[in-house]
Amino acid sequence: MKIIIEKDYENMSKTTMQLLLGKMYQDKEVHLAITAGSTPKRMYEMLVNEMREKTPLTNVCYYNFDEIPIGEEKFGVTVGNLKEMYFDPAGIPEEQIHVLDTKNYTEHEAHLKHVGGLDAILIGIGEDGHFCGNLPGVTKFGDETRLVSVDSLPSMFDVLLDEVGGNPENVPKNYVTMGPKSVMHAKEVIMFANGKKKAAIIKKALQGEVTENVPSSIFQLHPNFTVVLDEEAASELNI
Amino acid sequence: MKIIIEKDYENMSKTTMQLLLGKMYQDKEVHLAITAGSTPKRMYEMLVNEMREKTPLTNVCYYNFDEIPIGEEKFGVTVGNLKEMYFDPAGIPEEQIHVLDTKNYTEHEAHLKHVGGLDAILIGIGEDGHFCGNLPGVTKFGDETRLVSVDSLPSMFDVLLDEVGGNPENVPKNYVTMGPKSVMHAKEVIMFANGKKKAAIIKKALQGEVTENVPSSIFQLHPNFTVVLDEEAASELNI
Amino acid sequence: MKIIIEKDYENMSKTTMQLLLGKMYQDKEVHLAITAGSTPKRMYEMLVNEMREKTPLTNVCYYNFDEIPIGEEKFGVTVGNLKEMYFDPAGIPEEQIHVLDTKNYTEHEAHLKHVGGLDAILIGIGEDGHFCGNLPGVTKFGDETRLVSVDSLPSMFDVLLDEVGGNPENVPKNYVTMGPKSVMHAKEVIMFANGKKKAAIIKKALQGEVTENVPSSIFQLHPNFTVVLDEEAASELNI
Amino acid sequence: MKIIIEKDYENMSKTTMQLLLGKMYQDKEVHLAITAGSTPKRMYEMLVNEMREKTPLTNVCYYNFDEIPIGEEKFGVTVGNLKEMYFDPAGIPEEQIHVLDTKNYTEHEAHLKHVGGLDAILIGIGEDGHFCGNLPGVTKFGDETRLVSVDSLPSMFDVLLDEVGGNPENVPKNYVTMGPKSVMHAKEVIMFANGKKKAAIIKKALQGEVTENVPSSIFQLHPNFTVVLDEEAASELNI
Repeated sequence: MKIIIEKDYENMSKTTMQLLLGKMYQDKEVHLAITAGSTPKRMYEMLVNEMREKTPLTNVCYYNFDEIPIGEEKFGVTVGNLKEMYFDPAGIPEEQIHVLDTKNYTEHEAHLKHVGGLDAILIGIGEDGHFCGNLPGVTKFGDETRLVSVDSLPSMFDVLLDEVGGNPENVPKNYVTMGPKSVMHAKEVIMFANGKKKAAIIKKALQGEVTENVPSSIFQLHPNFTVVLDEEAASELNI
Repeated sequence: MKIIIEKDYENMSKTTMQLLLGKMYQDKEVHLAITAGSTPKRMYEMLVNEMREKTPLTNVCYYNFDEIPIGEEKFGVTVGNLKEMYFDPAGIPEEQIHVLDTKNYTEHEAHLKHVGGLDAILIGIGEDGHFCGNLPGVTKFGDETRLVSVDSLPSMFDVLLDEVGGNPENVPKNYVTMGPKSVMHAKEVIMFANGKKKAAIIKKALQGEVTENVPSSIFQLHPNFTVVLDEEAASELNI
Repeated sequence: MKIIIEKDYENMSKTTMQLLLGKMYQDKEVHLAITAGSTPKRMYEMLVNEMREKTPLTNVCYYNFDEIPIGEEKFGVTVGNLKEMYFDPAGIPEEQIHVLDTKNYTEHEAHLKHVGGLDAILIGIGEDGHFCGNLPGVTKFGDETRLVSVDSLPSMFDVLLDEVGGNPENVPKNYVTMGPKSVMHAKEVIMFANGKKKAAIIKKALQGEVTENVPSSIFQLHPNFTVVLDEEAASELNI
Repeated sequence: MKIIIEKDYENMSKTTMQLLLGKMYQDKEVHLAITAGSTPKRMYEMLVNEMREKTPLTNVCYYNFDEIPIGEEKFGVTVGNLKEMYFDPAGIPEEQIHVLDTKNYTEHEAHLKHVGGLDAILIGIGEDGHFCGNLPGVTKFGDETRLVSVDSLPSMFDVLLDEVGGNPENVPKNYVTMGPKSVMHAKEVIMFANGKKKAAIIKKALQGEVTENVPSSIFQLHPNFTVVLDEEAASELNI
């Protein structure tokens, strides 16, 4: 595990972007799974600026790693969010975007195997220790890419309701997510987090017990795991 | 996980040897941790025959991954066993053998990091699911290379008594072992097993839950995990 | 460069087979380009024996690296030879065989790039220093996969006549071959050679000048180049 | 080969820095050989700024790849220049700096082999096509790390006179440089260049013949070769 501590959100975002760019600038097809959500917001702004000024990096294949479908819409919550924050303003063409959704998920791992696996996956961490859609209580370390039911936890309906924007009719029966086993197979796992409210879970996930109660703790076992934090998120670590 | 099933112990041994040779024949320093015990007996006989006929493979660095000290003797149970079965008859010079013992274990992981990590580790599996010295009840997934005390389990004294040859005076206070975290950092994990009596634990370790009760189950999460079995050991698997 | 010297053709064949098996036994898709001709004959016999006894290694994708078409026949000289010696007796299904021919060669490098490149290429060496179809006089180090014309050298008609079995009507206008640049992009290059008559060119290719007059000399620059020789082929080397 | 074209020197410098940072931010020892000279000037300024703000990246081992000794001084021209531009202002401690000089050069390749090889080497290109100290006329593709004599070329005295600052008494008998063979063994080769006066040689080196007359042309054969150019340096390329 390599922990990089930056003074604030701005620098955490810049360093994470540099990490991704370091992967993208290679003389080969590069397969990256990237996160949606609020943590990467500033990073995608920076990345969009970088992309605007240079020859398109057509060697990069992008993947989402979880998805919540919204009714019959073409794109779910995650890809919709990624398109808005990054793919559209950076001008990434659709053929470089490999959508994972509740319809095609059974072919996902075979596809990744065929192209030689993910070069890197960029993940955030929830205050409960979840990564991708792997919440404590519904996640076993051996889980692969799979459907998770709205009925799997008492609280899951509300979690999904929030994600789909508050309309109960849009809460789906299932969402899809890569599992701990799938993510562990990536060549590099990059996690980033910022802010005081992440400090306690960062301490647990990185320096606590490896346990399914804190799904992200599994990455202590990954051979190439890089964590980028701002000083607040790192404030409870023993270093 | 790649499972290779051979018809018997002889062929399991040959295939495992081919796997190791495939690593050794490379134009680089190759770092291999290898197992002592009864499973590899035939494999080492074959490997000794191969080694006798060819230019020495001076690019290979060998490591043991656990050790039980015997009084003040220079080599413990594991290295003594490896010397007898393999290093001595194959004529491997001492400078290619990196001994891990209870005195130098704190430097082990830094050394491995410096040389770029283990290219592969060859492990067996116990009927209780242990690998290296990682027995159920004393092993947490987050453990690194460490001492394990004779007092860590009620049954441990008898386990060690058996290993040191039956003389209670030779039972040490501690043995040393690489932990699950250390082994997960190897670039490839190769496990082999043979015989009916391993069938039940092979089923559990490879297709059961990932749990500290079956320490070897963690390798379901390793990105490059190869298992060589004879038909008996594989007989309970769903394939 | 790693040079492995075996006492005779039998052992050279066995070691080369072990090298290939070491690649094949991996928990990933493995992409191997392999040679036809007389050098590999015994090796394929051994490999066929190995394959017959084990679960099929469906993760291996095979490629030929050059081809001489024969009239309107489906397979040319190289693939025909590989089928006879290896693919058919070993029971390798067609979906694991990626034929390179004069019709599809323009897509070859893009395909290899998509799957992450060749894991290894096994090549022989001609007494003139050629590898694949890269003969001195028609080969530039910068050449990629390309057509070579029967008119490219005065002697080429006779070379091809011999390859297609002596019927002048079957001598094609062009053959196809991977070039030095394409082969240098493989992750590992394995060369093997046996017999007194290869000793002089082996000395030149491995320890002489890097020059287009000896196309195989370029592999002195490859970061992972393994050479398996019998004692006769190695007899002129300074070691 | 991957060519990245940036609009100007500033952006070329930033992208090259991002490439290096992408290597450095890894959970392993990273071995980087980096260039002195005028091309990297702005890049090192940017890198120094980055380094000042973050936890030291103690996992990075730096190497120079050529050196011209100056009398009895501890550091030669290259390391002196690197210290001034980068190591000193960035606060890189001496134990992370692996000096190659005319005294220790015979151990250089063995050391690199032991640590698993260079992860990347960053090189510039001269208007004559040279890289490191590999000038046309004194460089064979098969050369390794070696001494080059002041007498090797008629013009060499003047070249060295210029490098040591104009005092003829400081012109050494030999300088040391990694050769084409040594550099080809790096896992990634990164070349950068800017300005109109580099346009002609960039065209030759990247799209011309692979020939010892243009030593840098050899990298067309490297499996992971990345080139960062400003628009002027790229202006003669066919793209």
